[in-house]
Amino acid sequence: MSIVFSASLRCQLPVLLLIFQGAFIAIFILFFSFEEPFSYLNTSNVTATAGEDDLDIFPLFKDVHIMLFAGLGLMLSFLRLYGFGGIAINFLIANFSIQWAMVVQGFFYHFKHWMIHLRLNNILEAEFAAVTALISAGAVLGRTSPVQLILLSALEIPLFVVNDWLVNKYFHILDIGGTVAIHIFSCYFGLGMSQILYQPSLQRGHKKETTTSNSDLLSLLGTIFLWIFWPSFNSVLAKNREAQHRAIVNTFLALSSGTMTTFAMSSLVDKRGRISLAHLQNASLAGGVAVGISADLISPGGALSIGCIASMACTLGFQYLSPFLAKKIKLQDQCGIHNLHGVPGIIGTIGSIVVILLEPIDTYGSSLHETLYSNGLDEQPILGVLGNTETWTSKGQALQQAAALGVTIGVSLFGGYITGLLMRLPCFFHPFREDFFDDQLYFQVPEDIENKWISNEKLQEHLLVPLKQI
Amino acid sequence: MSIVFSASLRCQLPVLLLIFQGAFIAIFILFFSFEEPFSYLNTSNVTATAGEDDLDIFPLFKDVHIMLFAGLGLMLSFLRLYGFGGIAINFLIANFSIQWAMVVQGFFYHFKHWMIHLRLNNILEAEFAAVTALISAGAVLGRTSPVQLILLSALEIPLFVVNDWLVNKYFHILDIGGTVAIHIFSCYFGLGMSQILYQPSLQRGHKKETTTSNSDLLSLLGTIFLWIFWPSFNSVLAKNREAQHRAIVNTFLALSSGTMTTFAMSSLVDKRGRISLAHLQNASLAGGVAVGISADLISPGGALSIGCIASMACTLGFQYLSPFLAKKIKLQDQCGIHNLHGVPGIIGTIGSIVVILLEPIDTYGSSLHETLYSNGLDEQPILGVLGNTETWTSKGQALQQAAALGVTIGVSLFGGYITGLLMRLPCFFHPFREDFFDDQLYFQVPEDIENKWISNEKLQEHLLVPLKQI
Amino acid sequence: MSIVFSASLRCQLPVLLLIFQGAFIAIFILFFSFEEPFSYLNTSNVTATAGEDDLDIFPLFKDVHIMLFAGLGLMLSFLRLYGFGGIAINFLIANFSIQWAMVVQGFFYHFKHWMIHLRLNNILEAEFAAVTALISAGAVLGRTSPVQLILLSALEIPLFVVNDWLVNKYFHILDIGGTVAIHIFSCYFGLGMSQILYQPSLQRGHKKETTTSNSDLLSLLGTIFLWIFWPSFNSVLAKNREAQHRAIVNTFLALSSGTMTTFAMSSLVDKRGRISLAHLQNASLAGGVAVGISADLISPGGALSIGCIASMACTLGFQYLSPFLAKKIKLQDQCGIHNLHGVPGIIGTIGSIVVILLEPIDTYGSSLHETLYSNGLDEQPILGVLGNTETWTSKGQALQQAAALGVTIGVSLFGGYITGLLMRLPCFFHPFREDFFDDQLYFQVPEDIENKWISNEKLQEHLLVPLKQI
Repeated sequence: MSIVFSASLRCQLPVLLLIFQGAFIAIFILFFSFEEPFSYLNTSNVTATAGEDDLDIFPLFKDVHIMLFAGLGLMLSFLRLYGFGGIAINFLIANFSIQWAMVVQGFFYHFKHWMIHLRLNNILEAEFAAVTALISAGAVLGRTSPVQLILLSALEIPLFVVNDWLVNKYFHILDIGGTVAIHIFSCYFGLGMSQILYQPSLQRGHKKETTTSNSDLLSLLGTIFLWIFWPSFNSVLAKNREAQHRAIVNTFLALSSGTMTTFAMSSLVDKRGRISLAHLQNASLAGGVAVGISADLISPGGALSIGCIASMACTLGFQYLSPFLAKKIKLQDQCGIHNLHGVPGIIGTIGSIVVILLEPIDTYGSSLHETLYSNGLDEQPILGVLGNTETWTSKGQALQQAAALGVTIGVSLFGGYITGLLMRLPCFFHPFREDFFDDQLYFQVPEDIENKWISNEKLQEHLLVPLKQI
Repeated sequence: MSIVFSASLRCQLPVLLLIFQGAFIAIFILFFSFEEPFSYLNTSNVTATAGEDDLDIFPLFKDVHIMLFAGLGLMLSFLRLYGFGGIAINFLIANFSIQWAMVVQGFFYHFKHWMIHLRLNNILEAEFAAVTALISAGAVLGRTSPVQLILLSALEIPLFVVNDWLVNKYFHILDIGGTVAIHIFSCYFGLGMSQILYQPSLQRGHKKETTTSNSDLLSLLGTIFLWIFWPSFNSVLAKNREAQHRAIVNTFLALSSGTMTTFAMSSLVDKRGRISLAHLQNASLAGGVAVGISADLISPGGALSIGCIASMACTLGFQYLSPFLAKKIKLQDQCGIHNLHGVPGIIGTIGSIVVILLEPIDTYGSSLHETLYSNGLDEQPILGVLGNTETWTSKGQALQQAAALGVTIGVSLFGGYITGLLMRLPCFFHPFREDFFDDQLYFQVPEDIENKWISNEKLQEHLLVPLKQI
Repeated sequence: MSIVFSASLRCQLPVLLLIFQGAFIAIFILFFSFEEPFSYLNTSNVTATAGEDDLDIFPLFKDVHIMLFAGLGLMLSFLRLYGFGGIAINFLIANFSIQWAMVVQGFFYHFKHWMIHLRLNNILEAEFAAVTALISAGAVLGRTSPVQLILLSALEIPLFVVNDWLVNKYFHILDIGGTVAIHIFSCYFGLGMSQILYQPSLQRGHKKETTTSNSDLLSLLGTIFLWIFWPSFNSVLAKNREAQHRAIVNTFLALSSGTMTTFAMSSLVDKRGRISLAHLQNASLAGGVAVGISADLISPGGALSIGCIASMACTLGFQYLSPFLAKKIKLQDQCGIHNLHGVPGIIGTIGSIVVILLEPIDTYGSSLHETLYSNGLDEQPILGVLGNTETWTSKGQALQQAAALGVTIGVSLFGGYITGLLMRLPCFFHPFREDFFDDQLYFQVPEDIENKWISNEKLQEHLLVPLKQI
């Protein structure tokens, strides 16, 4: 039985990947170029200057890479038998999503004179889109095949691009770190999909759904990599250097207070005062999610407060909300993305609304309005993104923040439901229940002396008898 | 019995953390601001320029983060049953220490017009202070609770700030990498505290004080992260770019020769020529500690020599000095901070004195005196820190280096003794002897199939019987 | 018997290392200086400006460090019992090679007025040389002692410097990422050496030549670190910022398409469609090797295509070519360097020839010729390296690319054979067959409860009886 499906994995995965890769190569050859259209009419100086600007983001580009490939990959490797499923499948989906997002965003934003002008910035932009697919996949970690996840990414990326456009260009949201456009979107997309893919049998738990001390430690290391580079993530889109400076400092402060709070809350909710590793791996990052939307606007004390509240909510979410939702609305959320991305994202958005509304009583010398318009030499005012600056009011902006949040939740839930329905189609390879959370279906795993892995063939003969006989 | 104490951990840790975090939030809201006092009177250009300077240290800021959170965290995870105790408690104490140091240093250095002007640089400054608490904690790794370590940090940070001021502003020490102010201070603070917390029973060793091949490998990976970014640590405070360049190159050279020497010495002292992992994990970094004080002053050959001598001393220290001190003066130094920070720090300081005294016979074109005063366009001469440059003599500077070393050892030992006495107070949660070096007291550890962890409940029933029966 | 040899390790390794380190210190003291010769005649401004340029490469310098010490070290730690042999011996050989390369390159390139002017750039240059020794060592991983590997590095580095000079200064090759000078050279040097060190008994496999899920995961993490920073490696030598920008983007694209292709091909060649970790650990990097030679010249679509082809060839190489060569020409290639560095390197070189020949039909506005000559303000045209620009023709350049490839293969094979013969001399410590792939010969390994390691003493008494009795 299992062999039948494995054969089907062999049919579907390579074919799907090679077709997509072939299509990407064709599209890149036809439409992507380093040259600006008609740039040969310009002087070479212009090109050189453009090159300089592009290279300036290279350090932040590398930071985002470390987050996506090493940080998130390690963080997802927390399951005892699904370590490669965490880091390697994340590696695959990230690469697929980035190339696919470059194509979608290329045609959506950069298509001019039948040509897409490719710069380093396009890749960074695509990586932000890819993040959403990786977060959403967290909701169904270990119980979907790579084939299904490629389908997920293929559908989520275009919807993200449209919603991102809506949120930024239509609602002119102030959201430097992508709290709404990235975290809220990917969270509710993932939850919608997960609800469709509901597995009743998982309610009683799964015997492979455990961690080891080593997998938990590597996962915590992944969290720490994400933690270290989160300030880069939240500040990379800043419009000027002063805003970028504030975004970096505030993100660090929110993460730091969030981490202390996580230790405190995790110890508090355990009857023996011990700290949960799942809490640490997730809630120490909640401050970064929540502060993203206002990282360039708020004061340092505000950043500390938001980080503290977000991590508190995230820890309590893992402890009480997730079991409640699993029971009441049959929501299975494997990595707890609702606690890490959903709840802190909503808290952050509410926080940003409060900050914007409180603007007139800001007492630190310069008001938010000044901050938004202030700019140094050859820098762009933050409010440049907001369209007509004459008619801008803080109440109007607050409404738009709220509207963007609501629209994003609606769009992403809808998209998630549709995607979940398509992923359930029997034509796509999906794992059996007993193969959930198990690398052996997808990888040629080594047979360790420590008996970490159970041979699949043996498994079928002697269920659950470990391989003691070397 | 153990349950009584665990309850007490639950009472103390969350309460302590939440009170501190609440106080930090209040202080930040009241006193910290991104705005310079009265900056709204200035033109916006000034602020923008300030922002640019601040952002320039962002890459080094991230490097220091990797060292503190990933590098040091992994390095401390070398114990078989105390991996989370290494990386996660380091994560907690680092965050507490950074926020606390921002408050202390804010009021000590930056308090003006009832306001503390917050820049990225303040966080970096605070991280250097936090390093001292993390190093000192290494002396008592695994035999103190997080509650005690927070007390340690709460007391050490203010003393560090005072001693740092003494060393730099009073003695005008030349010490770009903080060899005296950071390494010597934290080492003797930790040793003083450790001597007060002396555990007679540990003299015969502890059954949990062992490593595994995996924990040793991750710890070595932590060392390598520290090793890679040590040049950033030693050069971040450089006064001009040429000094920074020399500091980077010299730190790299000292680390590199130190690493080769560590392999050689470790093989030499083993009767079968095998290399010790504890030596590798520590002594390969000794060159970085020793060269810190003169990284911007010495020649490349000098850097190679200092690295070689420091790593030699560190390896011999682990092999012969530590057992000797443990026996003679009852000094228990869990991570060997005396060998890594104390001895190389003293060697480095002596080296700096030699370099300063030899200044007149420098034959490489420019003398040390010239180096100290030389500066490019809009750069600050190194000797700018030394006060009156007219009366500066190399002999006087040598004396001040020695005086700073002596004062730092005195202050830190004294502080360590006091802190140790307070940490011994029965009101603070501290672990029983059998729970030393064991994560189970503080973390909800997974019960691995590999039987890495011994269930605490079972432990009390059947002492030392491993959990074979799944 | 084993003890006799261990004693001999103790005699050889420390003595060799200390003699070399002593010699390096002496040479550095005598000849290396931060000052330019006669710089004291110049104004200080000049020195300051030089310092600025040097510091600009510091970020890329750190990236290369992460690749060499963390990335490559982890990647080589894939064997069950030879984890330290991977990461720690890599650490030692890298440090030896860098210092040795600084000496060789110093005298070869920078020796002027009996003085070598040392800048950060010299270290970076030396690290590129060190990479070759580390790659070549991969061919004999686990079956050579550190003593033999130091001999390997001592011989390979000078030959690399000569061949590098030949390829770049004589043949004026266009090879920004060192595909020919580094990858092809080190691969065929390693293969030549490996063939001389042929071990007939290994043809039937070795019982210790296995991996664990944890070692495979850490090795994959190493691959991911290399993957993340490969764009830095391929772009660090770019002549101007626009070329650097193209090299970064193209390297990323080639790696990304290569990774997707690796998943596809690996799944395709397994009868159950499962992905091989050895394939992932290696073939995902093949695109970076292949694109190195033309990363600044080709279009984005070209980069995607080259990455796809290189990873396809690398995966098939592991599956079919390596077993074939092992059987036919007795080539034992432990890490598969021929598949990762040799085959993709040749593919990349052929690709670069095609790109250069197709130059006239380039339709994207600016021709290759323009690209080569174009430069912004104060930037150096790429073709500046090519000598007389008047007589340059694309056909001539294509011939020179091919000639450089041929000469490099010849020189490196010859050097590898000679080196292999010297390494076989009985006077150098080398491991017995049963101690292949085993850390215990070189490291004081912990005796894990999990019984990962077999005590050597016990091993001699009771062959293969694991240490169950604690």
